[in-house]
Amino acid sequence: MESTTQNSAGILSHGFSSIKATPGKIKEKCIEVAKNTKKTWQDDPRRAIHSIKVALALTLVSLFYYFRPLYNGFGSSGIWAVLTVVVVFEFTVGATLSKGMNRGFATFLAGGLGIGAIYIAKLAGHKGEPFLLGASVFFLAGAATFSRFFPNIKKKYDYGVLVFILTFSMIAVSGYRVNEILNLANQRIWTILVGGAICIIISIFVCPVWAGSDLHNLVAGHIQNLANFLEVFGGEYFADVSADEDKNQSSDGVKDCKEINSFLEAYKTLLSSKATEESLANFAWWEPGHGSFLFRHPWKQYLKVAGIARKCAYHIEALSGYIYSENNPTEFRKCIREPCVKMIFESSMALKELASSLKIMKSPSPTTKANIENCKASIVELRLIVLDASSKLAIKNILDVIPEITVTSILIDIVECVEMIVDAVNELACKAQFKKAKELTIAAKNADKLLHRGIVKPVNEGDESRSNGIHDVVIVVEDGLHQVPKDTGPI
Amino acid sequence: MESTTQNSAGILSHGFSSIKATPGKIKEKCIEVAKNTKKTWQDDPRRAIHSIKVALALTLVSLFYYFRPLYNGFGSSGIWAVLTVVVVFEFTVGATLSKGMNRGFATFLAGGLGIGAIYIAKLAGHKGEPFLLGASVFFLAGAATFSRFFPNIKKKYDYGVLVFILTFSMIAVSGYRVNEILNLANQRIWTILVGGAICIIISIFVCPVWAGSDLHNLVAGHIQNLANFLEVFGGEYFADVSADEDKNQSSDGVKDCKEINSFLEAYKTLLSSKATEESLANFAWWEPGHGSFLFRHPWKQYLKVAGIARKCAYHIEALSGYIYSENNPTEFRKCIREPCVKMIFESSMALKELASSLKIMKSPSPTTKANIENCKASIVELRLIVLDASSKLAIKNILDVIPEITVTSILIDIVECVEMIVDAVNELACKAQFKKAKELTIAAKNADKLLHRGIVKPVNEGDESRSNGIHDVVIVVEDGLHQVPKDTGPI
Repeated sequence: MESTTQNSAGILSHGFSSIKATPGKIKEKCIEVAKNTKKTWQDDPRRAIHSIKVALALTLVSLFYYFRPLYNGFGSSGIWAVLTVVVVFEFTVGATLSKGMNRGFATFLAGGLGIGAIYIAKLAGHKGEPFLLGASVFFLAGAATFSRFFPNIKKKYDYGVLVFILTFSMIAVSGYRVNEILNLANQRIWTILVGGAICIIISIFVCPVWAGSDLHNLVAGHIQNLANFLEVFGGEYFADVSADEDKNQSSDGVKDCKEINSFLEAYKTLLSSKATEESLANFAWWEPGHGSFLFRHPWKQYLKVAGIARKCAYHIEALSGYIYSENNPTEFRKCIREPCVKMIFESSMALKELASSLKIMKSPSPTTKANIENCKASIVELRLIVLDASSKLAIKNILDVIPEITVTSILIDIVECVEMIVDAVNELACKAQFKKAKELTIAAKNADKLLHRGIVKPVNEGDESRSNGIHDVVIVVEDGLHQVPKDTGPI
Repeated sequence: MESTTQNSAGILSHGFSSIKATPGKIKEKCIEVAKNTKKTWQDDPRRAIHSIKVALALTLVSLFYYFRPLYNGFGSSGIWAVLTVVVVFEFTVGATLSKGMNRGFATFLAGGLGIGAIYIAKLAGHKGEPFLLGASVFFLAGAATFSRFFPNIKKKYDYGVLVFILTFSMIAVSGYRVNEILNLANQRIWTILVGGAICIIISIFVCPVWAGSDLHNLVAGHIQNLANFLEVFGGEYFADVSADEDKNQSSDGVKDCKEINSFLEAYKTLLSSKATEESLANFAWWEPGHGSFLFRHPWKQYLKVAGIARKCAYHIEALSGYIYSENNPTEFRKCIREPCVKMIFESSMALKELASSLKIMKSPSPTTKANIENCKASIVELRLIVLDASSKLAIKNILDVIPEITVTSILIDIVECVEMIVDAVNELACKAQFKKAKELTIAAKNADKLLHRGIVKPVNEGDESRSNGIHDVVIVVEDGLHQVPKDTGPI
């Protein structure tokens, strides 16, 4: 009895306190929503523009209803224009085109088939008609649903098949009642065309978001992220202890640390971005030529490049476990420092050149191949040093050097991947007919010599060398798209 | 002139030959479609059943039109039932429920808001009405579209927001014309409820496909694949050459090779399955209790387990490059063979136990922890052997042993991951209240002793040991769900 009273008192007080707490909770929720809104907007301001575009398209379509002449022309079918806008208008032009085209063609096809089915069913007489129509809906819907599991259809025509089933069922079923079936089909097709056209026009001409450009930038960003990781990894793992102490005294320590971590984490998006890339490539396939992208741009090649970059990212994932594994570098690590740093530097330089040439849509400079050659030379050098070290340092206990050997081994795998990325990007440049970067012959020759002499600018000297500026030292491009070297540094 | 004639001749002959080739092409296409159909069906026979279910639901909904009493009740709104079935019926119960619930709630909410907006707009008089309605559509559609970019909303309520925009626009827009707005809303809500109910009922009661079970099996399969890879890798990389020769003489060589490759490739699906797992977990959240899964089954924990398993797969990806790297095992590899094989064997045993206990929804046996302890003991042993080998074999050239050292190092990382997987699966078993496997005390003790004595059954002795049978040797479970050991092998 007592416990029951206590219970009710508990419930009452709980209820009371939760009522008292409600305004606070609402306030919290509001702040959360505001934060979410700000973050979503900051992540990609095009999202806000897209929302306005959708609202605009819907308001335009409402004109069908608001203005009497248009309403009289289309009747209540105008509602299909609203429906079309809501379902077809997607974030990217490619997605909108894909859905719009799918919807248009599927409606035509299903409309034709549906009307055909109705005429045939009418021949079967009043009693046979519903059975024939029902059977046709059953078989066509079943077959079409099954076809949605085919990978090729799922990839490009999934929405089309859905609309096909929808339209065919609606026409076949309603045709049994509504005698003005042709009129209905006619109205529906027109309103869908109008709705689809409004979507496509606004999507293309008002601040367009091209899936193709997004894919292009995404892949270039992936390569840049790999380069950034390698550069920071080289700087941290093979750090010069004395230089490190100097750096710690600087006031930018905290900011640096944050930046370094963001560089070290950025490649992770690549690990799970396969689905995003594939859908962007699919949507890009539907897009007309835009900017520097022609109609039949080799989008599939981007998937190939991204696939190899992802393989590289798997190796980097394995590498990332070692970055802060030991604070005091062993003697062995100091021995292998030079060739490893050179290898890392050359790889990241090649990757950066690839990323920046992708960004400006130029063929990658031949220096990338020289970078790879230098990497290979470094590997040979590394072998000699390891051979030398194992006798000189008398490494009796291999245990001590296991982390270093693993890191070296993974680095060599990464160089292999980088070479594959260079080839894939060159193939892309060739297929997409990127303009060729014409080096000043002398500059290129000089650069080549410098690269072969193996002059390496230490990667952790300061922030400037970490920016994109490094390769500007060696490449001078005629058309001035590459920056003219400001500081020749060690040269 | 001549070239034009040649051109037209060329086009003609090309056209003619392509017409001649058409029947052949059609035949090819038909064969391709038939092959695709067979493959799609064989990959998952539930797909064919799903297609039949959709067709059935559509045919049922057609009854609204075919039978006059129903038609009179719902009028032409019956078409919305068809639309609902086509868009809501998805492959899994969870996806169907998610879409159905989203559609239902969004329609109610938007319907209420739409009617409210119309009444308010009516107060503004004949001229102000379209402007007020237009503005409300513009702002609500814009805000709702923007909210679709919030990750939480995108994950669970994306379709709901879409239907909300759709319904609100349709009601607000058509309300300006159609005076029977309440009647329309009423009809629409009822037909949607009927369409949704038919989908959900058929989806749940006719051969249901549960997203939850799929996720459960997928994760268990991932763990099994990791175990299979490790086992085959151990067998191949640390193969006993003499035993290998015997094996090659067997007639099953080719079949074995195919099977081995499938085992070595299976883990790759794990690398890119994050999106699939997340969507399955989302859909599973909507599903009622089914089979051994209660309503609030900890689906998120599956994502955690899969995430750690994926991390393990990244290491395995790095490892897979070494499997056939050298045909002749070095002396060093022979030295480290025993502890490495033991480590691999214990890890894969632990993983297999996890996978099979997940499959039958029992808490993993404590032997998994013993496996991990044994792995750690093997790592200690390995260190001693490496220490010994570096002095005994006088490995002057570290170069020769770089691959072996890298493999060992990656294996140690994998053991770490396996330990994390064991913990995560135990946490899952605890959260999901899996039944505890009660070992016969004696059997468990014996098993523990055996494990600690480190009796290892070589992994490449024959095919039988490669099947799931290995761990049956040491675990005897009271309820008989585990198989009673058929062959005690080395015990």
